[in-house]
Amino acid sequence: KLYFHDSIMTVIKPNEKENFLKVFDHLNKEVLDNLESYNLPKDGKVHIKELIQATVPNGKMNRGMTVLSSYASLVNRDLNAEEIFKANTLGWCVEWLQAFFLVADDIMDGSITRRGQPCWYRRESVGLNAINDSFILESFIYKILKTHFRTETYYVDLIELFHEVSFQTELGQLMDLITAPEDKVDLNRFSTLKYRIQPIILHIYFIFRHAYIVQYKTAYYSFYLPIALSMLMAGIKNPKAYRDAQDILLPLGEYFQVQDDYLDCYGDPEVIGKIGTDIMDNKCSWLINQALILCSSEQKKILEENYGKKTSANELKVKKVFEEINIKQIYEAYEEASYKKIEGLINQLDGTILPKDMFFTFMKRIYKRKK
Amino acid sequence: KLYFHDSIMTVIKPNEKENFLKVFDHLNKEVLDNLESYNLPKDGKVHIKELIQATVPNGKMNRGMTVLSSYASLVNRDLNAEEIFKANTLGWCVEWLQAFFLVADDIMDGSITRRGQPCWYRRESVGLNAINDSFILESFIYKILKTHFRTETYYVDLIELFHEVSFQTELGQLMDLITAPEDKVDLNRFSTLKYRIQPIILHIYFIFRHAYIVQYKTAYYSFYLPIALSMLMAGIKNPKAYRDAQDILLPLGEYFQVQDDYLDCYGDPEVIGKIGTDIMDNKCSWLINQALILCSSEQKKILEENYGKKTSANELKVKKVFEEINIKQIYEAYEEASYKKIEGLINQLDGTILPKDMFFTFMKRIYKRKK
Ligand SMILES: [Mg+2]
Ligand SMILES: [Mg+2]
Ligand SMILES: [Mg+2]
Ligand SMILES: [Mg+2]
Ligand SMILES: [Mg+2]
Ligand SMILES: [Mg+2]
Repeated sequence: KLYFHDSIMTVIKPNEKENFLKVFDHLNKEVLDNLESYNLPKDGKVHIKELIQATVPNGKMNRGMTVLSSYASLVNRDLNAEEIFKANTLGWCVEWLQAFFLVADDIMDGSITRRGQPCWYRRESVGLNAINDSFILESFIYKILKTHFRTETYYVDLIELFHEVSFQTELGQLMDLITAPEDKVDLNRFSTLKYRIQPIILHIYFIFRHAYIVQYKTAYYSFYLPIALSMLMAGIKNPKAYRDAQDILLPLGEYFQVQDDYLDCYGDPEVIGKIGTDIMDNKCSWLINQALILCSSEQKKILEENYGKKTSANELKVKKVFEEINIKQIYEAYEEASYKKIEGLINQLDGTILPKDMFFTFMKRIYKRKK
Repeated sequence: KLYFHDSIMTVIKPNEKENFLKVFDHLNKEVLDNLESYNLPKDGKVHIKELIQATVPNGKMNRGMTVLSSYASLVNRDLNAEEIFKANTLGWCVEWLQAFFLVADDIMDGSITRRGQPCWYRRESVGLNAINDSFILESFIYKILKTHFRTETYYVDLIELFHEVSFQTELGQLMDLITAPEDKVDLNRFSTLKYRIQPIILHIYFIFRHAYIVQYKTAYYSFYLPIALSMLMAGIKNPKAYRDAQDILLPLGEYFQVQDDYLDCYGDPEVIGKIGTDIMDNKCSWLINQALILCSSEQKKILEENYGKKTSANELKVKKVFEEINIKQIYEAYEEASYKKIEGLINQLDGTILPKDMFFTFMKRIYKRKK
């Protein structure tokens, strides 16, 4: 018995991560060996080897490992070694895609660290060459697909899915990037507008825009892509099944981001593994957006004076306003409503193609998370 | 009679460019209309519209227009309107690919202008967001292929060809980028090396490396890709035919780059449309590489003191050394040898699949060029 399908999302076998990493070693060796056919000079090979090592295998790997677990849930039987290898290979393609986007995102955001290490572009020998490096990471996705899926009937569908989800992610990044930082958390943006709109309406417009960004730049590739890959591998052809999956997974992705914002402020640092800095970093988080809707003009003044400032005294004042408007209760209400909504969506599934069970286990795992 | 196949590379019908641009208008409208299905906010649409307009249609379009001309030569009959449209669509995919690479290349090189305009990334509202913009340009290639070639038997081959050529271009860029600028034209690189190698051997090693960069970062996508696309469209399946095409087109691409370097210094500015600046810009051109092989130690000293300096007095001194070593004659010998070599390669073709004629006309067009 190679894989126990029923408990995929909740029970992670002790060696699941280890197995997943073994597949990485295999694929990594394969793509590096393949460079031989391009007569690439030694220093080029060394560069690519370091690039992959620094950017692909060091994440949480949740996205990548979801392909196998959801495939197991879909076919609902024991899996053979080849199936496990292939599902994990697709999982690594998701991780490679993420590496491609994160290398570039860190340059565009001017980020300092990623996964506890200096960002790739900040290495002295790299700099803006990291742009071309991100292209190389992307290219490896299609090399891996070609090597392992060329003869499958769903090969074209795999390629098109990666193209489509990449494009969606790029649209999300675009909207994120052209929504100027001042707009994002300029608490004064209502008063500086020339035309007169009720601030609350404008703010709600902004929240919709923010939801668009979250859905496009994160939810498609993080939530929809791994499940859709497992569906392709399971031979599911009906387009309705893919739309159904999206209808559930995109709201789940949005909830996940709200939760991320909440945990940044109220999660246990011991548990989430870092001390949240969203308030000091002037981040456009769900919390500040809610606070702006619900605050009085006195509270708004406090938020204006303290949000995005670098001392913990400022941070405390912001947190005090959050508490005054009962943000925890609002979050709990949101969480409850969101859970009900997604539960309703899953129950509406006819359940013949996509097992409700797969989504419920996925959802429960996320709704319970404290990190 | 829609297209006169026999004269493809030499006689350009007066409206050829105009027709090609009409296809651009069609494709451009199509990809912009397609954004509706992504609910992209207005400012996102405006951004993408400007991005495409600024980076895709303003080049010389030689690469793009070659697909139709070489397709006509391959099938050797009159073409119908659909065939012309499809070949030109593939041609625009080449131009879109180039836009993707040039937007990124200009950032990495810190370039100022491109095609007579400020580079895309230098617009005030763009900056490093141009990285994500380059991804978006790439994504449109696959959208266009999907819209117009999804049902063709060679659809997968088109996608794989674009993936492969993109990867080759990225490897060329990588080698170009990690060959440090000082290495490229540090005329002292021989003396600073710790280990003792005959300078001439080291220099020849460097010339090989330079040839690798030229082949990978330029020749595959500029010379091989357009012809290979027309071959796929013409239904050619034999892998040997594609290897044969490469064996001719890659050396042709290398010659083209040498010629480009030569014309920068010795072309008629009236004809090439710009005043060459390679000497002042410290460029690693074919001329300086030859000069370094052939100069005396006195001449080398003059090159060291004047190459890459910004006054025309310096430039003149470099040019004087070039003349002393008879660079024009060396170039002419190179051109002659290169012509003979490629002529020989074409004559070795059996000519049943690929018409020799197609390559000869292509070659003659390039060997005669004064701009
Ligand atoms: Mg970022
Ligand atoms: Mg970002
Ligand atoms: Mg966060
Ligand atoms: Mg450049
Ligand atoms: Mg460059
Ligand atoms: Mg030049």
